[in-house]
Amino acid sequence: MGEKLMRKLSSGSLDFEVYFSDKAQEMKASEIRELLKLVETSDVISLAGGLPAPETFPVETIKKITAEILNTHADKALQYGTTKGFTPLRLALADWMEKRYGIPTSKVEIMMVAGSQQALDIIGRVFINPGDIVVVEGPTYLAALNAFKYYEPEFVSIPMDDNGMMIDLLEEKLEKLRAEGKKVKFVYTVSTFQNPMGVTMSLDRRKRLVELAQEYDFLIVEDSPYSELRYSGEPIPPIKHFDDEGRVIYLGTFSKIFAPGFRLGWVAAHPHFIRKMEIAKQALDLCANPFGQVIAWKYVADGYLDEHIPRVIEFYKPRRDAMLEALEEYMPEGVKWTKPDGGMFIWVTLPEGIDTKLMMEKAVAKGVAYVPGEAFFAHRDVKNTMRLNFTYVPEEKIHEGVKRLAGVIEEEIKAIKD
Amino acid sequence: MGEKLMRKLSSGSLDFEVYFSDKAQEMKASEIRELLKLVETSDVISLAGGLPAPETFPVETIKKITAEILNTHADKALQYGTTKGFTPLRLALADWMEKRYGIPTSKVEIMMVAGSQQALDIIGRVFINPGDIVVVEGPTYLAALNAFKYYEPEFVSIPMDDNGMMIDLLEEKLEKLRAEGKKVKFVYTVSTFQNPMGVTMSLDRRKRLVELAQEYDFLIVEDSPYSELRYSGEPIPPIKHFDDEGRVIYLGTFSKIFAPGFRLGWVAAHPHFIRKMEIAKQALDLCANPFGQVIAWKYVADGYLDEHIPRVIEFYKPRRDAMLEALEEYMPEGVKWTKPDGGMFIWVTLPEGIDTKLMMEKAVAKGVAYVPGEAFFAHRDVKNTMRLNFTYVPEEKIHEGVKRLAGVIEEEIKAIKD
Repeated sequence: MGEKLMRKLSSGSLDFEVYFSDKAQEMKASEIRELLKLVETSDVISLAGGLPAPETFPVETIKKITAEILNTHADKALQYGTTKGFTPLRLALADWMEKRYGIPTSKVEIMMVAGSQQALDIIGRVFINPGDIVVVEGPTYLAALNAFKYYEPEFVSIPMDDNGMMIDLLEEKLEKLRAEGKKVKFVYTVSTFQNPMGVTMSLDRRKRLVELAQEYDFLIVEDSPYSELRYSGEPIPPIKHFDDEGRVIYLGTFSKIFAPGFRLGWVAAHPHFIRKMEIAKQALDLCANPFGQVIAWKYVADGYLDEHIPRVIEFYKPRRDAMLEALEEYMPEGVKWTKPDGGMFIWVTLPEGIDTKLMMEKAVAKGVAYVPGEAFFAHRDVKNTMRLNFTYVPEEKIHEGVKRLAGVIEEEIKAIKD
Repeated sequence: MGEKLMRKLSSGSLDFEVYFSDKAQEMKASEIRELLKLVETSDVISLAGGLPAPETFPVETIKKITAEILNTHADKALQYGTTKGFTPLRLALADWMEKRYGIPTSKVEIMMVAGSQQALDIIGRVFINPGDIVVVEGPTYLAALNAFKYYEPEFVSIPMDDNGMMIDLLEEKLEKLRAEGKKVKFVYTVSTFQNPMGVTMSLDRRKRLVELAQEYDFLIVEDSPYSELRYSGEPIPPIKHFDDEGRVIYLGTFSKIFAPGFRLGWVAAHPHFIRKMEIAKQALDLCANPFGQVIAWKYVADGYLDEHIPRVIEFYKPRRDAMLEALEEYMPEGVKWTKPDGGMFIWVTLPEGIDTKLMMEKAVAKGVAYVPGEAFFAHRDVKNTMRLNFTYVPEEKIHEGVKRLAGVIEEEIKAIKD
């Protein structure tokens, strides 16, 4: 419904705002979303999105599986399910994680969720008291900040470099907090091919993070939606792999290795944590959609997933390469960017003094869009960064988009030098 | 995972409980769920469930639609969707509600949710401040109490009779609250074929409730999952039909007229309310599953829904009749029950002094299960009631189950007389 009709309906009627809870009064629509709505309707090349390419969806496999399960498992697929999820799927995922990541099935229980976004909300609900300290990466996944914020934590943001969260800085911070008599509830990390930076936490840092968690008694929430999308370099085990005590809560999702349309993710954690999260989820939506869960079960258990991952990689690698090449070719001096081995994003840092949010209008006028970096920082204190996506747009457009963007940045650099 | 493995994993390891938020510490698994888990594994006739019969799922239609949309709309069905939901489905539902309930499309906006359970959580989040007064029916839908409770309202419970919530008692209560300088935030009602009682709020009471909402300035949350399942009597328009100001937030669901496996419901409300609920939902799970939404769109827009409803009614009516007959035939004097014109449940009231929760074990020993009524009351202050479901179990079993139950009750009545 348009703003116009909304105004018409509102005129001379209720004062709707007064009914909202105090916390709802503070909820605001994401400025970026509003901005991107405009972009979608024009012929701008958008490097702003976060969507997987529809060409990677295994449509034929889904047709086959869906027809099959409607013949053989319609009763399960169409009925309510248990809150924890469809057991054959949960077992298949546990096996898959053991094989793929070396996380013994005996060490985790799995709960299915409505995409890993829901896991973030449930984690907020189950673990965060107002004022609890939650450590995030600076920058971090925007929608995680959004999900946690409702539960009123105090965010501590740890800087990143090309090897992920700077664990030595985390340690310093932990020491300082301890001296103040404070404790961290959990560290949230997108450990592999991070959103928004594309970087991966190094093996040493992973191990050290687990040691710190024991030493300073905190939990780790490892969000790993992109780890299967590796285009170069050697795989690194998830942080969860190094977790003997059950401190790591691992989040996986089907959105990037199957299709987002099923809205299915999972939490792999110690059964004690899963049990509480299950009770919380029950009040939220009873269960994740069983229709999608039964389809996903076949997809994992019958080996389609393992077959499909290389195809997704093959599709995205040239796009990643195209963006890195274009950045190299066009970006003016003083601009830096990450060189991800996988995932969906590249992070660009402009010279100090340029505000990418203010620059956005000019970029759109020149026919290119990106996501300004500010909103990825818990304290919104960094202005000269941006996130570029390379999975949604074809190579030629990536090339042209980066070229346009470089032109805009060049002008900005000139302007601040003047 | 079994309790045994959980204990093993816990021994000598973390004290998991200490990490939970204060509110999570209070979250407990539903006793009824735990109880029913036991029942499911034995050969007890369970009248306790709340599930639709799988025989009513339109499997052939779903096969047809799914094959079709994977050929023509795979891009939409498999991709992320907007938070508000798939627009063609939202428009089709608005049309359907206009035609079916006389609610003009110009007066409502629709947001798709992960089952109406999610709408209850979002309503809690968006409207309830701790201490806000929320009026519920006594008894009311258990999972609504559960969803709202997290947001710490003060529940006021209004008694029910065969015509639904006793609006004269509500008015008295409102007057009293006004005298104390207090206001109600919203009234929650399952207006038609209520869960758990099966009764329907009369036309006069619906109109009067809307008048009271204006007079005492509160909102109405009308939860209507069962209204299409009418086996006798004349349809009554929803409360939303009488709402000129936008005070009524209407909840619908596909779970009873299509299949629960898609986990799809909707909220129909004033765009001002929808807009805030949309922002809240974004942090919860981004969007309801698009795969199910695109299927549901075809189901509504191509007329399958209207074709299917009479078949569901035809299937359930004999079961409702069978349960009413069996109650008439077997129940001892002093036992009363509702005579629903539709829905899924009958509510049974035993003589004072019988505690149906305590009686449950004996009933299970005699081979029949029900849901003790206590948990449906906000203040858990009524002990002698129970909810029976007639949609899941075939007629012969309903007959036998009610017979067994009557035997147990007869003994209990004797026992309290002694």
